Amino acid sequence: LARIDLNADVGEGYGAWSLGADEELFAFVSSANVACGFHAGDPRLMDRTVARALASGVAIGAHPSHPDLRGFGRRALAATPEDVETDVLYQIGALAAFAAAHGTRLSHVKPHGALYNQAADDPALAQAIARAIARFDPQLALVGLAGSDAMREAAEDGGLRFVAEGFVDRAYDARGRLLPRREAGAVLDDPQAAARQALAIACEGRVSTRDGTAVELHAQTLCLHGDNPKAVAIARAVRVALERAGVEVLPLDA
Amino acid sequence: LARIDLNADVGEGYGAWSLGADEELFAFVSSANVACGFHAGDPRLMDRTVARALASGVAIGAHPSHPDLRGFGRRALAATPEDVETDVLYQIGALAAFAAAHGTRLSHVKPHGALYNQAADDPALAQAIARAIARFDPQLALVGLAGSDAMREAAEDGGLRFVAEGFVDRAYDARGRLLPRREAGAVLDDPQAAARQALAIACEGRVSTRDGTAVELHAQTLCLHGDNPKAVAIARAVRVALERAGVEVLPLDA
Amino acid sequence: LARIDLNADVGEGYGAWSLGADEELFAFVSSANVACGFHAGDPRLMDRTVARALASGVAIGAHPSHPDLRGFGRRALAATPEDVETDVLYQIGALAAFAAAHGTRLSHVKPHGALYNQAADDPALAQAIARAIARFDPQLALVGLAGSDAMREAAEDGGLRFVAEGFVDRAYDARGRLLPRREAGAVLDDPQAAARQALAIACEGRVSTRDGTAVELHAQTLCLHGDNPKAVAIARAVRVALERAGVEVLPLDA
Amino acid sequence: LARIDLNADVGEGYGAWSLGADEELFAFVSSANVACGFHAGDPRLMDRTVARALASGVAIGAHPSHPDLRGFGRRALAATPEDVETDVLYQIGALAAFAAAHGTRLSHVKPHGALYNQAADDPALAQAIARAIARFDPQLALVGLAGSDAMREAAEDGGLRFVAEGFVDRAYDARGRLLPRREAGAVLDDPQAAARQALAIACEGRVSTRDGTAVELHAQTLCLHGDNPKAVAIARAVRVALERAGVEVLPLDA
Repeated sequence: LARIDLNADVGEGYGAWSLGADEELFAFVSSANVACGFHAGDPRLMDRTVARALASGVAIGAHPSHPDLRGFGRRALAATPEDVETDVLYQIGALAAFAAAHGTRLSHVKPHGALYNQAADDPALAQAIARAIARFDPQLALVGLAGSDAMREAAEDGGLRFVAEGFVDRAYDARGRLLPRREAGAVLDDPQAAARQALAIACEGRVSTRDGTAVELHAQTLCLHGDNPKAVAIARAVRVALERAGVEVLPLDA
Repeated sequence: LARIDLNADVGEGYGAWSLGADEELFAFVSSANVACGFHAGDPRLMDRTVARALASGVAIGAHPSHPDLRGFGRRALAATPEDVETDVLYQIGALAAFAAAHGTRLSHVKPHGALYNQAADDPALAQAIARAIARFDPQLALVGLAGSDAMREAAEDGGLRFVAEGFVDRAYDARGRLLPRREAGAVLDDPQAAARQALAIACEGRVSTRDGTAVELHAQTLCLHGDNPKAVAIARAVRVALERAGVEVLPLDA
Repeated sequence: LARIDLNADVGEGYGAWSLGADEELFAFVSSANVACGFHAGDPRLMDRTVARALASGVAIGAHPSHPDLRGFGRRALAATPEDVETDVLYQIGALAAFAAAHGTRLSHVKPHGALYNQAADDPALAQAIARAIARFDPQLALVGLAGSDAMREAAEDGGLRFVAEGFVDRAYDARGRLLPRREAGAVLDDPQAAARQALAIACEGRVSTRDGTAVELHAQTLCLHGDNPKAVAIARAVRVALERAGVEVLPLDA
Repeated sequence: LARIDLNADVGEGYGAWSLGADEELFAFVSSANVACGFHAGDPRLMDRTVARALASGVAIGAHPSHPDLRGFGRRALAATPEDVETDVLYQIGALAAFAAAHGTRLSHVKPHGALYNQAADDPALAQAIARAIARFDPQLALVGLAGSDAMREAAEDGGLRFVAEGFVDRAYDARGRLLPRREAGAVLDDPQAAARQALAIACEGRVSTRDGTAVELHAQTLCLHGDNPKAVAIARAVRVALERAGVEVLPLDA
């Protein structure tokens, strides 16, 4: 029987500023990646987001970033592996405290934005992330880009479970990498197109690229971006399409 | 047999900037309060500081602050109890991750600077701090100003051990409160005067005030400020004086 | 002939986060207070906000704050007068650079949030603000709470024009001070009530307080809060009511 | 008659943290690059640093950086040209306010750390910096790496004076670029070696590289790093050597 995890990045406001449609997304996803204060997510918001995820029965993961509130963590930073290892450890610990305060535990760690993209191609950064996780709790899964050898190998070297991630609302290139956000067509905003992409990944292990070909893509979790203006419509369409196709939507450790 | 804990604030540099004489202090203290990133202490420094404390056999506590790098956490901030509770929880968790990464645990939490002073007089903030600790791990002791009913009662209400703290290098007023740093004579820089104050607190349960009278002061831990220019000389003088007087210097949970 | 300035706080997003309805407000106000990076307002947003204000024919002022992104500058901070003077000077200079880059100049400075409220009651802070302005450019007006002797006298001592400000969407107490935002009824969200309050201040020099009495309130500028959910409806209602009553809406230096 | 400017980066503390030996360096240099808050330099320190530079007769320039207190601005950041242009404009304006407050003006802008290095090789970033300067005040000189076509051309395109900079205490590679700090031998700490390098650049227009060859290097200003442990000894040795050789040390606009 086919199964997959659906995840979303949540808790990405900061102080007076809010972002995304967390409440609505909690109804559709099985896992949530909670911002930990470096690109978004102040402590009050982290506390509330953990409470909401828990109340919705959604598995909770850390979503650590480079320190970059201004750039929302989307700008590549030439951080050293030691910077990255300790930044990630710090953020996992901070979020784990809120999980503990609510009587629950983290299930996974998914790097955010530029850190995610840099680590997909840079073994030293991928290993720094894996080391941070392994030092904190080797039961936590590492979520990374499907097809990234750097991330998969770093997880394996650290004794961690690697969870390959696909994206339902982002266009892929012929290498199986995400098109940069600044390129036209990089972000899908048609819920039905997103649902088709979700089904192709979940059921067929492949995804159509922008130039019309298909590349193999084996993913155990699918990401729904909360900051997509169509986020809720996309989430609903993807969830419905998966369930109609008989794919069970379950958290990673279920 | 008399015993007391000696503590120091450590890890108070940030990035390219260093502060204090942590290495030397580790030789004299039994407990260390590690900055958690809000007033000082970046993740790399936290990792190293925990490693050094552990190697020195010094108990490790969290030293959370208001978010105020600019003011080193020394400026009172009208944070709400919810702000304080979640800020403290965040910082405890971040430091606890480094403790876990080194195979050890935290022993206590001591608020820093303005947060410490505000909580000494404001039951709502004291309780917010105690709530953060209790939600994370009620085995952690709360270190606060000796004589502060707000802090002691907050700890008791939260089911936490309260550890009353005295200061060897700060002058007291007739209420048993610290003189503000901006006042002349607020900071003692004579190692022998600091040693005498340590003995008076540890052995007699009282401290001389600036106007020459004495006030009762019952403390289970004594603070050595690492940013005092005479920090190391004071630490040595205090430690020697206590041991000569037969007072055992031991961490809180020994 | 009666005249008054209408002002709004603008440019209060940050990075990926937006806030307020600046575009719509520019159609109704004669002056804009632009966030300068300490409570909101990153450099890109400042550049764009100055461009939009200029294109709308709206006078541009600096809106400096305590450094507090987390609390949106709304939390009182025990900053020293020297801290405040230099923080304000820094922020005025930063915004003035964008004004110069667009070929225009600043007309005024209005402190934000907690800094505004603290300075209304604390002559040392009010004078620190006035000193910063006078050191930069004594042609800049200081906008402060109508009825604040501290602010008015600080402006006069610094050789600055003081501009007394009234609020159309905030409730007043019997002292003529704003009710704290956390109190029920502190924020008016009925456009017609706001319009009545605007007319009472502009035409009669008084305002109704929450307990039903009226206090004198002489203001040369009226604030429309952009973060009020009804901000645009309020702005329109106030502008229309003033013009129907024959009150000219003009910037401070017109 | 030969002449050259000597410059140092100053005001690179932050809050409670200090760095460098500004007071001593002011005796030897003719120009100072003042940190503007993004990698170091809080507003109080900026005010004091401008006052000290002015009292020492040293020309004042802005030293803008990527926003990176944690990494002291030394980590390359994938900022867009628009980010860089507005960040630089913001920081120039902030510092210019302190200059105006002290009755003086800025003479130049020298990007800091990673921004300096990125702009030396990236025309889009170099032009963003030049655009910021030109929008603020085209009388300000742009100081950049000697030999960087990107920086020189950006200055020329913006109608700015380009000032080529050499380094007395950093080793060069065969391309005439600085060796990265992490490499052995990248930082010279022998005052006499630094003095020899200063003379070679100032009098002969060339510099020895680590592999023993020499490359052409035409510079109008020489940098003395204040954070070099030998900074003061190096500054003295360089100044003495230049004056003995008959090279006048003068600020850029003298």
